[in-house]
Amino acid sequence: MAEGPTTARVSDCVVLAKIPDGPLSAEHFALQTEEVPEPGPGQVSVRVQAITIGAGQRAGLQGSASYAGAPEVGVVMAGTGAGVVEASNAEGIGVGDTVVGSTGWRRNAVMDASELRVADGALDPALHLGVLGTNGLTAYFGLLDVGKPEPGETVVVSAAAGSVGHIAGQIAKARGCRVVGVAGSDHKCELLRGEIGFDAALNRHSPHFRAEFRSATPDRINVYFDNTGGEILGSALFRMATFGRIVCCGAVSAYDTANPDPSPRGIPGLLVNNQVRMQGFLVFSYASRYDEARAQMLEWIEAGALVPRHITYEGLGAAGGAFVDLLGGRTVGTTIVRLGD
Amino acid sequence: MAEGPTTARVSDCVVLAKIPDGPLSAEHFALQTEEVPEPGPGQVSVRVQAITIGAGQRAGLQGSASYAGAPEVGVVMAGTGAGVVEASNAEGIGVGDTVVGSTGWRRNAVMDASELRVADGALDPALHLGVLGTNGLTAYFGLLDVGKPEPGETVVVSAAAGSVGHIAGQIAKARGCRVVGVAGSDHKCELLRGEIGFDAALNRHSPHFRAEFRSATPDRINVYFDNTGGEILGSALFRMATFGRIVCCGAVSAYDTANPDPSPRGIPGLLVNNQVRMQGFLVFSYASRYDEARAQMLEWIEAGALVPRHITYEGLGAAGGAFVDLLGGRTVGTTIVRLGD
Repeated sequence: MAEGPTTARVSDCVVLAKIPDGPLSAEHFALQTEEVPEPGPGQVSVRVQAITIGAGQRAGLQGSASYAGAPEVGVVMAGTGAGVVEASNAEGIGVGDTVVGSTGWRRNAVMDASELRVADGALDPALHLGVLGTNGLTAYFGLLDVGKPEPGETVVVSAAAGSVGHIAGQIAKARGCRVVGVAGSDHKCELLRGEIGFDAALNRHSPHFRAEFRSATPDRINVYFDNTGGEILGSALFRMATFGRIVCCGAVSAYDTANPDPSPRGIPGLLVNNQVRMQGFLVFSYASRYDEARAQMLEWIEAGALVPRHITYEGLGAAGGAFVDLLGGRTVGTTIVRLGD
Repeated sequence: MAEGPTTARVSDCVVLAKIPDGPLSAEHFALQTEEVPEPGPGQVSVRVQAITIGAGQRAGLQGSASYAGAPEVGVVMAGTGAGVVEASNAEGIGVGDTVVGSTGWRRNAVMDASELRVADGALDPALHLGVLGTNGLTAYFGLLDVGKPEPGETVVVSAAAGSVGHIAGQIAKARGCRVVGVAGSDHKCELLRGEIGFDAALNRHSPHFRAEFRSATPDRINVYFDNTGGEILGSALFRMATFGRIVCCGAVSAYDTANPDPSPRGIPGLLVNNQVRMQGFLVFSYASRYDEARAQMLEWIEAGALVPRHITYEGLGAAGGAFVDLLGGRTVGTTIVRLGD
C-alpha cells in the first residue's frame, strides 16, 4: 500500500530569524526554503506574484501587545500576497485565477479557498495589495466612517506619505476637505503638496514643527487621522476643533522600538474641553462593506481623483530590507515586493 | 437733578481670596458683602435659597486650562443657585417664582431673566440643583448619548458616589446594565452597593485595587464613565471590551493639584487594538434636550428607580468648606449649600 518516494517540491520563503527588541534590521529575517504540500480538499496552490508589507506588521513582532498574537522565531512571516492559482481542489476557484490573501512571505502558498479572494486579473497586483487591499480599505473606512469629515473641514493625516496616509488624504480631498499631511522628510512633503495634491505638508523633523503645525491649521483640526501616535498625536490634541474627531488608525511611532513614547499629554482634559471623540478601529470590522469601498475607490481612480502610489522591491530576498526601509521612513505609498516569474 | 442719597442694599457673597496652586483650603475663599443693584429692564432680583458646588468648578480655578476662562481674585465665586424672585422687570417671570441659574455664591442676585429658568417651586431646590440641574443632565447625556449602554453590558463609573457618578450609575441600572462603581472610601462603597444599588463598588485606595478591578469586570467593560482621569482611567483602558466606549466627563484627579497625573499609558494603542471610542463632552451642547431629560428623570424618581442624594451645608460661610470637603472626597451625592431665610 505504501507509495514510492516522490520528490517533494521546495520553494522560497522568509522566516523571522530573531525577535526584534529595537529597530528592525535585515538580520531579523532569513530567506529559506520550505516544502510545498499538495493542495488538499477545498484547497488551492498559489504561485505568489507580489506581497505587500505594512508598518502595522511591526506591531505583530512585539508579542502580547499585538492583536495578532505573539511572534515566533523560525515561522514564515505573515503577510498579504497576490498570485495566480496553479492547482485547485476547490469549487469556484480555477487554475489561472488571480487571488489575494494571507499567503505569507513565500513563493508558493497552499491555502483553503475560503481564505482567498478572487480578484480582477487584469489589474496590477499592486492595486489589489494597496488601494484595494487592507491599506486602502483602512484609509476608506477610517476616514469616512470613523472620521466623518464634512466638506470644508480641515483634515490632518500623519504618516501622510505612507500606504494608508496618502490614500486617506486623497479621499479627504475628494470629500472637499482642506488636507494637511505630516511626513518624515522634505522629499515626502514635496510629493504630498505636488503630485499627491495635499493642501499643505509638514516635515515632523523640522525644528519649528509645532509652530508650523499651528500655522498650517488656522481653523484648527476637525479630523485628525492618526497613523503615528506619539508626538504628532500630542500636537494634534492641542489643535482639535470643538467636536473634532481623532481616528486612531495606527501608532507607528510605537512599533519599531522597545521604548515607545509615553501617551500624549492632556488626556482626558483636552477631550472634555473640546468635546473631542478619539476612536480606535480595525478594518476587519468592516469586512461586510469591502466591496462597496473597492467599487468607490476604483471609480475615483478612473476619474483621476485618487492616484495610489507604491514602491517596488524585486525578489523575496528583498522583503526584509523593504520592511526596514518602510519603518525607517524611506518609502512612499504602499510597499510591494514583486517575486518575479 | 441729583437724587438724594439712598441706603444701598448690601448682601453676603463669597469671593475668591487667593488663586490655589495646590489642594484647595478655606483660606482661598472670603465671605464679604456686596451692594445689590436694583433690577434694570428685563432683569429680576432673586433671593437665593441654595447653591450647588461641583468638582468641575475646581478646574475653573486653574486658569487657562479651563473652558470657563481664567479665575480672578476678589471676584464672586461663580456657581449655580436656586431662589425666589423678589422683584421683576421682565416679562414672563413674576415675584414669587422659583428660578434656577448662574447666580454665583451670593445671597441676592440681580440677573437678566434670559439667564434664568423658571422651575417648579413645589420641589426641593436641591433637586433643581442636583438631578434636574447640570449634574443630573451631565449624567443623563453622558451615559445615554455618549456611552450608549445596552442592557446586559458592564458599565463602570468613577467618582461613583459623586454628584454625577451616583446618578449615572443609577441610570445605567435603569437601563439594565451591570454597574460597577469606583469610589474613594469603604463608606462610599457600602452606600453604593447598598442604598444606591450598584452591583459592585471598589475603593480606589485599596492596596489590591488593580486586581479587584479585574475581578469586578470579568466580562471586561463596555462603558467606562470617567469622572476622574488619571490612574482609574489607566486601569479601565486595559479592561475595555471590543467596541467599548469611554465617556470623558471630567478629570477630578487633575483638578485639585498643581501637578496632575500624566496621561494614562497605552494611548493610542489600546484604543486601536480594542476598537475603543473615547469621547469628551460638555453638557451645554445638549441644551435643546434638557426638558426631555428632566421629564425622564422625574419619571424615574417617581417610580423609585432613581434616588438622587445630596449633602447639605448651612449658610454661605460654609460654601468654601463644602468645596474643600467635595474635593477631599468627603461628600456623597450633590453638594448643596442652603442659605436659610
